[in-house]
Amino acid sequence: MPGEMLGAIEAGGTKFVLAVGPSPDMITARIELPTLDPAATLAAAAEWFDAQGPVTRLGIGSFGPVDCDPASVGWGRITNTPKAGWADCDIAGYFIDRLGVPVGFDTDVNAAALAEYRAAAGEGCRSLAYLTIGTGIGGGLVLDGRPVHGVAHPEMGHIHPRRHPLDQDFAGVCPHHSDCLEGLASGPAIHARWGASLSQLAGDHPAHTIIADYVAQACHTLFACLAVERVVIGGGVAKTSGLVERIAARSVELGAGYLPGTTRHRVEAPRLGRDAGITGALMLAAAAA
Amino acid sequence: MPGEMLGAIEAGGTKFVLAVGPSPDMITARIELPTLDPAATLAAAAEWFDAQGPVTRLGIGSFGPVDCDPASVGWGRITNTPKAGWADCDIAGYFIDRLGVPVGFDTDVNAAALAEYRAAAGEGCRSLAYLTIGTGIGGGLVLDGRPVHGVAHPEMGHIHPRRHPLDQDFAGVCPHHSDCLEGLASGPAIHARWGASLSQLAGDHPAHTIIADYVAQACHTLFACLAVERVVIGGGVAKTSGLVERIAARSVELGAGYLPGTTRHRVEAPRLGRDAGITGALMLAAAAA
Repeated sequence: MPGEMLGAIEAGGTKFVLAVGPSPDMITARIELPTLDPAATLAAAAEWFDAQGPVTRLGIGSFGPVDCDPASVGWGRITNTPKAGWADCDIAGYFIDRLGVPVGFDTDVNAAALAEYRAAAGEGCRSLAYLTIGTGIGGGLVLDGRPVHGVAHPEMGHIHPRRHPLDQDFAGVCPHHSDCLEGLASGPAIHARWGASLSQLAGDHPAHTIIADYVAQACHTLFACLAVERVVIGGGVAKTSGLVERIAARSVELGAGYLPGTTRHRVEAPRLGRDAGITGALMLAAAAA
Repeated sequence: MPGEMLGAIEAGGTKFVLAVGPSPDMITARIELPTLDPAATLAAAAEWFDAQGPVTRLGIGSFGPVDCDPASVGWGRITNTPKAGWADCDIAGYFIDRLGVPVGFDTDVNAAALAEYRAAAGEGCRSLAYLTIGTGIGGGLVLDGRPVHGVAHPEMGHIHPRRHPLDQDFAGVCPHHSDCLEGLASGPAIHARWGASLSQLAGDHPAHTIIADYVAQACHTLFACLAVERVVIGGGVAKTSGLVERIAARSVELGAGYLPGTTRHRVEAPRLGRDAGITGALMLAAAAA
């Protein structure tokens, strides 16, 4: 609407990305702040928004777990994160009080899924999952234009893939499930096994096949459970050359031509690149009331 | 509405269940017909509806795979089923022509999920998956009151569970994926391994633990990918004494307390028992336009 100035926060465990713009299609200013303790980080963010001129709405896509149930008294909070100081942080409430504007709030991955969905919707895509493969593994889901929350929000990193034949001995790094998807295929899991990031390992290193297989199992699971049309693979690990293509090829093998939506299921890299999350946060701002 | 007489078909590979009633809450007549070739089966069904007095709307929950995309020219058809004679059968079109009434059409498991969702919604449940464990394994999904279709419809039976330590040698019976969930835990898979149905095997037979583990993995996957609140376990195999309780207990173990909706995730038996599918078909009729 005229006079609108949207503010957006992509709240990560390492950094906060902030942006402002008149619509989700246009970012007019942007900054990254290190994630320190909540008081310092949120105050620094609010000061930056002040300096941009007043924002009229704010959207926040946050690391989790979060409470994003509008009917909950705890809505807008980061809940039981292991990140020191951040458990039970009322991040949305802080900005509602401090900026006095409506705030939209969701997971970082649902925000990214929203933005990628909008980018793909012009081709008739109606359902999309966004998987991030980085320090952690998480997923967001948009069906018919709406982010899906269920009873809280998805935690796709904690499904249990089958162990790859070449990866039988590694215990996995997840403190809860040992060898769940995050325990096997996240950045820390790759480092723990091979002492390097995936992009530092030679192209013929078996790590590429192993990691692609685990992520492809997640894609197959989403295709089978949801008949979702696209799975977008983001995050730092996904920038490894050739990885998304390997995941796509392996997920086709896993489907074996059976799934009824067969050729319409697709695995792809983020169209918005690093801007998926912050663009989704601007969309959350635009929808805030 | 006044004067409404809903008709419903739960179309299975072995039998067709037909019912009529003034609303989804009241079945006034019901019959089961064997599934023969399409011409004979559909004609017999239409004659039974004629004999009940004219129906004003019809709902069909069908075995699949089906085309349930309202925007598709193939809507209302069973697609590439291996069941002899039924591939490409225009089941909804047949009744639209023959009865001259609006027809609602979905998968049998989405119909069952709709009915179970309605039964659970009074407790505030907003998302529910229905898994049927029988001759095949399939699943339906209702989120915020709406069945989910994605690019076609879910095929939850074809996810790939981890092999149980006591079940390493069985090849699995799925012609597409060998040891997917359906290949390992369906009725035919149980018979192929142990020469009996699960309910015929003694309560301390390891089959109970093995099958419960596989289905629990599917429940965990649905909790993690969708944060779905309830997973209802129906179908013939699920009637085995104690099985649903074993599945529920194992799915709690698999979650390890991590999922953010933790205590609100629940595995349960169908509240509507054998009536879930046909009640859902009546709901499809009530919504047909």
